[in-house]
Amino acid sequence: MAFPCVDQLEQRTQKFLQSFDGGPEPSYSNPISGYSLYQHNEPFLLDHGGILPKFEIAYETWGELNEDKSNAILLHTGLSASSHAKSHPQNTTPGWWEKFIGPGLAIDTNRFHVICTNVIGGCYGSTGPSSIDPKDGKPYATRFPIVTIFDMVRAQFEMLDAMGIKKLHASVGASMGGMQSLAAALLFKDRISKVISISAAARSHPYSIALRFTQRQVLMADPNWNKGFYYDKVPPHSGMKLAREIATISYRSGPEWEQRFGRKRSQPTTTPSLCADFLIETYLDHQGERFCLQYDPNSLLYVSKAMDMFDLSASVSAETALRRARNTLRLQEGKGSSAPENAAVPPEEEQQIACSTVNAADVAKNVVLDDPKAQLEDLQAGLSVLKDIPTLILGIQSDILFPVWQQKEVADCLRQTGNKTVTYYELDSMYGHDAFLLEIINVGSAVKGHLELK
Amino acid sequence: MAFPCVDQLEQRTQKFLQSFDGGPEPSYSNPISGYSLYQHNEPFLLDHGGILPKFEIAYETWGELNEDKSNAILLHTGLSASSHAKSHPQNTTPGWWEKFIGPGLAIDTNRFHVICTNVIGGCYGSTGPSSIDPKDGKPYATRFPIVTIFDMVRAQFEMLDAMGIKKLHASVGASMGGMQSLAAALLFKDRISKVISISAAARSHPYSIALRFTQRQVLMADPNWNKGFYYDKVPPHSGMKLAREIATISYRSGPEWEQRFGRKRSQPTTTPSLCADFLIETYLDHQGERFCLQYDPNSLLYVSKAMDMFDLSASVSAETALRRARNTLRLQEGKGSSAPENAAVPPEEEQQIACSTVNAADVAKNVVLDDPKAQLEDLQAGLSVLKDIPTLILGIQSDILFPVWQQKEVADCLRQTGNKTVTYYELDSMYGHDAFLLEIINVGSAVKGHLELK
Repeated sequence: MAFPCVDQLEQRTQKFLQSFDGGPEPSYSNPISGYSLYQHNEPFLLDHGGILPKFEIAYETWGELNEDKSNAILLHTGLSASSHAKSHPQNTTPGWWEKFIGPGLAIDTNRFHVICTNVIGGCYGSTGPSSIDPKDGKPYATRFPIVTIFDMVRAQFEMLDAMGIKKLHASVGASMGGMQSLAAALLFKDRISKVISISAAARSHPYSIALRFTQRQVLMADPNWNKGFYYDKVPPHSGMKLAREIATISYRSGPEWEQRFGRKRSQPTTTPSLCADFLIETYLDHQGERFCLQYDPNSLLYVSKAMDMFDLSASVSAETALRRARNTLRLQEGKGSSAPENAAVPPEEEQQIACSTVNAADVAKNVVLDDPKAQLEDLQAGLSVLKDIPTLILGIQSDILFPVWQQKEVADCLRQTGNKTVTYYELDSMYGHDAFLLEIINVGSAVKGHLELK
Repeated sequence: MAFPCVDQLEQRTQKFLQSFDGGPEPSYSNPISGYSLYQHNEPFLLDHGGILPKFEIAYETWGELNEDKSNAILLHTGLSASSHAKSHPQNTTPGWWEKFIGPGLAIDTNRFHVICTNVIGGCYGSTGPSSIDPKDGKPYATRFPIVTIFDMVRAQFEMLDAMGIKKLHASVGASMGGMQSLAAALLFKDRISKVISISAAARSHPYSIALRFTQRQVLMADPNWNKGFYYDKVPPHSGMKLAREIATISYRSGPEWEQRFGRKRSQPTTTPSLCADFLIETYLDHQGERFCLQYDPNSLLYVSKAMDMFDLSASVSAETALRRARNTLRLQEGKGSSAPENAAVPPEEEQQIACSTVNAADVAKNVVLDDPKAQLEDLQAGLSVLKDIPTLILGIQSDILFPVWQQKEVADCLRQTGNKTVTYYELDSMYGHDAFLLEIINVGSAVKGHLELK
């Protein structure tokens, strides 16, 4: 039996080995162009105690910023997207929300100044594991500290500060971007007028964690991953391809697949084979091929982990606040390092920082762990910060990664907090999680309506 | 950052390498004992043209066969199960349906003689890729021919012939076993009184094919897989572990996970890590560990592929019949080999075999490819063979691998064919696809009722 799918992986490895005599770098090192760079030259403390001595954010903008800087919309990306949401003179390639942004479109560039960034931890121009650690001039690799969705958002707001943008018209995002969108409102409620969160959640549930876990495991099992230190070697292209195949199942397995692929085989007259054979398999193979050199494997690990850890519950925010308070002290005392902080804090120091509120929440966390009702109240308490912000929550009924009950949960919690301006839509799209990229009219109208309604 | 999950894989590889100085064989070579063996010493033609010069089936039985041999129940297994459905004196380990089989239980051994086999292509005693090819005394590996669900069933009935069992009281199975159960009725309708098919389908749908495809890809990407020739080397244990982690998501991701794991971390006070961290991740890791040396990797490839190809539509059966007729001729002429048959059949030979019915169905297949209504009619036509057999179809509402619409489809088709004795149940179990192993009362009662109702 022939195994062209296995040969193909080996051939790519060989090609890499040959290219090391002055050959090209893996393409994720800079696949896009035409973005601007925000440079932050101060140490930046992360939620889990890591410190970036400095960082950069790649961003792109569309539409004019008005004089009082009140028409800005911060657009957050999904896991693997760059800041290139739409084409522009510096990069004419269509962006990932090409048909949603523009004059008269869902996000109307005649009215709004749209800013889209690549996240901290990513690989499309912002500081991430493939960036150079100033300490030794080598890529961070897995020396990069653990980042959270909140860290990504906090970095974005440092950039907004530098731009002089005090208040956003809206925080908008889908998938991981929808998490960021909510997180931004939690951190900076007075700086955001409206929130849009599409196909996202207030906390990751075990099935989605499981799906991302297998992607990370598959990637880390590729011997070329080399514990993250592959930047001058053969990258783990085969692990990345496999991870993307798994991811694609979770992004796109709506009823669309029944119609589009059904049980069709790519070469119906041949004997069945163990490599890609059915059309759906060829499709997955193609998605894996496209992605395997496009995105930095270490970024996939860090950014997908950030999604897993996402939880807007009050007790989690309180814990994080306590941890940050401790680590801020350490940073001020010059004890910080870019490695995650595991060391125990001396009791007297802890005493000094911890306030009774935080302690109470901390205790509550342990109590609620096994009680769904208490967990929901914890989440409501966490989301109560958003009670005065008009918020659009949008879900797709065929989404298996962020199932619609998760968006309903956010909407219900927000309403429970007394928010009278929650809009909640469910779409019956057949595209699953990816619907936010494809349903230009259904998703677009909801976005436009929410952004423009006085 | 530490990566114990990666170190663990490497340590196991090292352990294998050390053991090759007279160390033990990988455990899947014979992990169970106490089964009987049916030996078939004639060449056996497979659906896709491969030929097994001979084969063996491992089987176990419970309850007495009555005098007229009319009380036998053939129990079909899921993908990775052995013939050990229940403990018995020769093997006292609990079986995979331990609490479903026994005096007074769902399958009452006071009434019935239960026979459970390991499938052709498997690795628990029946002939499969790890078996010795008599041609050269070496394991078949991926020289093993492609097998179908129908091939597995046909082999089982060769065994029943040898046992002198002309008619089964029932054909019973869940998951892949539920496919076999239907296939048995299609092939041997006059030899089966009742059919039970649990959490199965009449044809695999693209999402389930996609899930099994990624498992195969992950396994085949493990360098130790070595295109299937690993029997005297380090087995692809890390690919198998990853494949099982993916499979577990599809078997067990019901609402149970929300309750059992939620967002709990295994060590809540440590800094988040990129190896298993949340409890759900530890669980998946454990499932992968348990399985990675228990089952033959090549068997996973062949048996999961058989599930993908499963389709009871009339046009598919007609195509298969045509192919078998051609290959039977070739076998009789001594042209057969154990390799899959790709060679074109000479036109005159084809002329000789093909009957107009088969041609018509063949043509129909091309017509219906893109028309869901025609596809459904094609399936109804295929299932019409079962129109006089009392059939129990049972589905689990939280099953994502064999979603309940697939069982509904089978029940609806059967009713459309005029079958007045179709029983269709949906269970609201929280265990997903694995419910058939866990819901002793809900699944058990349905099975008992169907088997014992006059």
